[in-house]
Amino acid sequence: MIALFTDFGLAGPYTGQVKAVLAQQAPGVPVVDLFADLPAAQPKPAAYLLAAYGPWFPPGTALLAVVDPGVGGERRAVVVEADGRFYVGPDNGLFELVLRRAESARCWEIVWRPESLSASFHGRDLFAPVAAWLAIGGPDAAMLREAEISRVADWPDDLAEIVYIDHYGNALTGLRAAVLPAGARLEAGGRLLRRARTFADVPPGSALWYENANGLAEIAVNAGRADAALGLAIGSPVSVVR
Amino acid sequence: MIALFTDFGLAGPYTGQVKAVLAQQAPGVPVVDLFADLPAAQPKPAAYLLAAYGPWFPPGTALLAVVDPGVGGERRAVVVEADGRFYVGPDNGLFELVLRRAESARCWEIVWRPESLSASFHGRDLFAPVAAWLAIGGPDAAMLREAEISRVADWPDDLAEIVYIDHYGNALTGLRAAVLPAGARLEAGGRLLRRARTFADVPPGSALWYENANGLAEIAVNAGRADAALGLAIGSPVSVVR
Amino acid sequence: MIALFTDFGLAGPYTGQVKAVLAQQAPGVPVVDLFADLPAAQPKPAAYLLAAYGPWFPPGTALLAVVDPGVGGERRAVVVEADGRFYVGPDNGLFELVLRRAESARCWEIVWRPESLSASFHGRDLFAPVAAWLAIGGPDAAMLREAEISRVADWPDDLAEIVYIDHYGNALTGLRAAVLPAGARLEAGGRLLRRARTFADVPPGSALWYENANGLAEIAVNAGRADAALGLAIGSPVSVVR
Repeated sequence: MIALFTDFGLAGPYTGQVKAVLAQQAPGVPVVDLFADLPAAQPKPAAYLLAAYGPWFPPGTALLAVVDPGVGGERRAVVVEADGRFYVGPDNGLFELVLRRAESARCWEIVWRPESLSASFHGRDLFAPVAAWLAIGGPDAAMLREAEISRVADWPDDLAEIVYIDHYGNALTGLRAAVLPAGARLEAGGRLLRRARTFADVPPGSALWYENANGLAEIAVNAGRADAALGLAIGSPVSVVR
Repeated sequence: MIALFTDFGLAGPYTGQVKAVLAQQAPGVPVVDLFADLPAAQPKPAAYLLAAYGPWFPPGTALLAVVDPGVGGERRAVVVEADGRFYVGPDNGLFELVLRRAESARCWEIVWRPESLSASFHGRDLFAPVAAWLAIGGPDAAMLREAEISRVADWPDDLAEIVYIDHYGNALTGLRAAVLPAGARLEAGGRLLRRARTFADVPPGSALWYENANGLAEIAVNAGRADAALGLAIGSPVSVVR
Repeated sequence: MIALFTDFGLAGPYTGQVKAVLAQQAPGVPVVDLFADLPAAQPKPAAYLLAAYGPWFPPGTALLAVVDPGVGGERRAVVVEADGRFYVGPDNGLFELVLRRAESARCWEIVWRPESLSASFHGRDLFAPVAAWLAIGGPDAAMLREAEISRVADWPDDLAEIVYIDHYGNALTGLRAAVLPAGARLEAGGRLLRRARTFADVPPGSALWYENANGLAEIAVNAGRADAALGLAIGSPVSVVR
């Protein structure tokens, strides 16, 4: 399986061209859109989402991860194998949390270049072919060179910020619920929120936080939009109150 | 074939994870997005859309129908077989109109539970596996138990409200055009609308209603947006004027 | 492969029903969404996008191209074969630039009609079956009749307007970068823009134009939205300053 994790959007020309490449180079391999609406050009919040959602996929999955504000510049193109899954994308911190949490990992620089490489769409021209080859059994050895990738040591293990607003208006944090103290409350948008099992456990209109289906602490309002009610956006700070 | 009928959105993580489950458990079965933008958490308008759009699919199709504000609460998980199609989702009225219009139907409660069931994402954890099994020939008999499902007798046979706004700004009603009297006009947003065959039959800027391609009475403005021009939203009332 | 080039949107019922038809009539053929958010009901800007993005697909691809404000009216339904690719859609100018740039081309009118043809959704009922047949080896000869299609001689070879705003806020013009003089600047939104190789080549917040990955001149702001910063929308004029 190939999973797409990008800020490309679905409706315009980018994701479709990537899928056209994958359909030709990895015929028959299912391709799913994991995220197409990551915060544009912000690898940091994306890195916490990737570490939460990537390992949910079965081993052998190739994750094409492209949030790439430096496309066309000097940043390298890399592959990370972490716990049996392959992550393909730019070397800009996107894989930092995946690597930090992996039990086993290897990293490569992509040294292969296509005959024709656009300046602005490496997702289509460079990363998609490599993801396709990984999904069907691995690229030619000469295409990759084992290498260290850039690490971002000052990013925390868990990020006390909003990293994504979903289309219900729920606000996902970069905090794993499992590392928060029992009984912890979250402060966000000037409100102190208690933990519930799910939004149906609080009255309509009430705000809460809960562990979402991929392990992140998520802020919601039952039968409402948390982003509007609490004034939350990508990057809004969250505090853990013990 | 498996058709998805949800309020999950396409760009974020929900539909993609559902498709990843389906790709693994029903390999090779086509999956199509029928609706991903149903009015969030509103089973009633969705029920009228499902009854209009579900029967268009070929017999044998499994429709994964998830508009589920009570997820994680007490509502049951059910399967409805109606005229040869399978509908899988929460027992919250979503299948009321499908059942009422079916020539033959059977209902089951889903008694199977996955090893790991999240509190908030039964679409991925519970309904998708069952839809996959139905699409490839049926789940193990022990997974389902024949049962009555909850009926909503006070919902009308046709709903005189706007149930969906499409991305052109057209406003779909819950009224089947075929049950309206010949020559009926619709009143909506303070305007009295005549029937036309299609929007090209009225001058640009004019409002009309017509029978859409799935049999619903739909309000449109030729070369314009009916939602903006007439002030229509989900739940706006519509009157039939004979 | 079948590529969809429409103004249907992805989340609502239109694209999904088209894909359901394709899955039944061209089983196993990959279907990709090239554009689902073309400017609604505007064949002219779409024609310039189709000529830029269609030829990127491999020969043999069937492109289902539906921007069809005249659906249900008198306009004909046509197929164009241009340089080995098939384009299927309404005869309203959508294929003008594809034809003008093709080395070899043939045109047909679609004379086949389905048993049941809705007034408003020929994408599903008429064009999708024909695209499916073309993708799997060609429809029955009686379905098509070789014919001239309507030409739009007064549309220019390159369109000095914004034809699409992508979800980053970048503004695509209908101008091929390759036909612009070396050193040409573009004037748009009252600003004079210099060419760069990619947005990373100018400081954050600066506007530029560059040749996008499909050959069009595209206006962008590094780490910003060009549509908002320059006040650009579909149809905004662009001037070439030599």
